[in-house]
Amino acid sequence: MLELNTLRGQVETHLNKLLPAQSSIAQPMLDAMRHAVLGGGKRMRPMFACASCEAFGGDLQAALVSGCALEFIHSYSLIHDDLPAMDDDDIRHGQPSTHIAFGEANAILAGDSLHSLAFQAVVDSDELVDASKLRIIQLLSDAAGWAGMAGGQCLDIEAEGRELNLTELKALHAAKTGALIRASLQIGAFSATPTPEPPRYQALSDAGDLIGLAFQIMDDVLDVTQSTEVLGKPAGSDEAQNKNTFPKLMGLEASKTEAERLLSEANERLYANDLATPALLELLTQAVRRRF
Amino acid sequence: MLELNTLRGQVETHLNKLLPAQSSIAQPMLDAMRHAVLGGGKRMRPMFACASCEAFGGDLQAALVSGCALEFIHSYSLIHDDLPAMDDDDIRHGQPSTHIAFGEANAILAGDSLHSLAFQAVVDSDELVDASKLRIIQLLSDAAGWAGMAGGQCLDIEAEGRELNLTELKALHAAKTGALIRASLQIGAFSATPTPEPPRYQALSDAGDLIGLAFQIMDDVLDVTQSTEVLGKPAGSDEAQNKNTFPKLMGLEASKTEAERLLSEANERLYANDLATPALLELLTQAVRRRF
Repeated sequence: MLELNTLRGQVETHLNKLLPAQSSIAQPMLDAMRHAVLGGGKRMRPMFACASCEAFGGDLQAALVSGCALEFIHSYSLIHDDLPAMDDDDIRHGQPSTHIAFGEANAILAGDSLHSLAFQAVVDSDELVDASKLRIIQLLSDAAGWAGMAGGQCLDIEAEGRELNLTELKALHAAKTGALIRASLQIGAFSATPTPEPPRYQALSDAGDLIGLAFQIMDDVLDVTQSTEVLGKPAGSDEAQNKNTFPKLMGLEASKTEAERLLSEANERLYANDLATPALLELLTQAVRRRF
Repeated sequence: MLELNTLRGQVETHLNKLLPAQSSIAQPMLDAMRHAVLGGGKRMRPMFACASCEAFGGDLQAALVSGCALEFIHSYSLIHDDLPAMDDDDIRHGQPSTHIAFGEANAILAGDSLHSLAFQAVVDSDELVDASKLRIIQLLSDAAGWAGMAGGQCLDIEAEGRELNLTELKALHAAKTGALIRASLQIGAFSATPTPEPPRYQALSDAGDLIGLAFQIMDDVLDVTQSTEVLGKPAGSDEAQNKNTFPKLMGLEASKTEAERLLSEANERLYANDLATPALLELLTQAVRRRF
C-alpha cells in the first residue's frame, strides 16, 4: 500500500533525477528549470498518477516517470503564467518567481524546455510499455494544449474585468486546471496498463473532472481566506487582478459547500468501481480540504 | 518523384487542416497560432522531412504529418524568440510579429499551444505506425528541448555583447538551429519506416548537421547583405542586437565559401549512400543558396 509521505519523497527524488543539471550552453536556463520545479509544490499531479496506477495494479516506477512529466507541464505553466505579460506574479512557493530570479528570457525558455522535457521523460522511460507511452503522450498533450490548460489560461486573462456566468467559469477551469488534473488520474491508469478496464477508467476520469473543479473552487476560496505567508503566493491576487472566481459568483460559504459536494461525489465513483484505495481517497480529500 | 512546388502546396494544406480553427474559450489564441504558422515561411523543415521520407521509400502522407509537427515547433520558437524579453522583433514574414498583432499573453500561449500541438499531431496520426511515432516524438522533443533549440536560444541571448569564438558559435547554432534541421531529415526517415538502415540513416543525420550549419551561416550573411523587404524581418538586426555571427568572426566572403563547402560535403554524403534524390539535392541547395 502506498504511504503518501514516502511517495512524496520518491517524487522529489525522481524530479531531481529527470531534471538536467549541467549544460555547456544553457546553464542559467537549467538553473531556472530546477528553481521552478524543485522550489516547492504539493506534487498533487504526480501523487494522483501514482495512486491511480496502484489502483489499476501497476508498478509505481512507471507512474513516477509519467507523474514527473505531469509536474513538468504544470511547472512550465506556472512559470509562463507568472510572467509580467500574463498574471504578473512575483512570488511562487514563497520564493521569487522564476522570471524574478532568472530574468524573463530564461523564464520563458525554462518553461519551454520543461514542456519538451515532459515528453522526453515519457518517451525515454524504460518502465513504460510502448502502447502506454503513446496514450500518455496523447493525454498529456491534449490536456496541456489549445483545448486544455493553455486555452483556459487564454480565457482567464481575456475575461479579466468582464463578468463570466457560472457555466463559463466552469468551462474556463475545466480547461485551465481540470484537464491536467483529470489527465493525472488517467495517465496513472495508463502507466499501469495500456488497456485499463473501460468502466473503471470512465469512473476514474469522472472523479478527475469532479475533483478538478473542487480543487479550483477551493483555490479561489483560499485566495480570499488565507494569508500570503501560508499560500506561498500573493493572497487576494484574484481580486487585485479582477479575476472571475467562484466565491464572487456563488458566495464564500456556498463555494465551500459545493467543493465538499463534489468531493463526496468523486468518492462515490471510486467506491462504486473498486477504486477506493486509501491513497486515492486521501489524495482526493487533500486536494479539497487543504490550507494552501 | 516529389515535385517541390506541389509539395509546398500540400504542406500548406496540411498545416491548415491540423491547426484548430474554432474555440469557445480561446479564439484569440487560436487566431494567433494561425497567424504565426500560416503567415508565411519557407516550410524548409516539412519539405526536408517529406524528401527524406521519399528517399527511404515511405509514403508522403506520413511525412506530411510529422513535417507539420516540425513546423509547429519551429513556429512556436519564432513567436517566443520575437517577444520583447527575447529578441524583441516586431516584424516576421513581412507581417507584424505575433505579439504585435495579438498581444504578448496570446503570443506566449499560442507558442505553448503549438508546442503541444506538434505532439498531438504525431500521436493522433493515422498514417504513422506506433514504433515510428515514438522515435519521432523522441527526436522532436530532444531537438526542441534544453540540449537543442531552447538551449541554443538561451546561449544566443546570454552571449549578446560578449564575444564567442568559432567553436562556441558553432555549438550555439548546432543547438539553436541545427538540431531541428537535422531532426527534420531524421524524422522523415522514421516517417517512412521505424527501422531505417543504419548507414544510410547516419549519412542522412550527418548531412543534416552539415546543412544546418550552412543554413545558419547564410542566415547571418543575409542579415548583413539583404534588405528588410526581401528578408521579411529586420535586416541588420544581428548587428543592432550585438549578436555573435559568422561574418563577424570569419568575414563575409569566407562565410559564404564555408557555407558552399558544407553544402558540397552534405551532397557527397547523399551521393555515397543512395540518398541523392532530386528533391533532397534541390532542398539542400535551396537551404544555402537563397535570397531570404
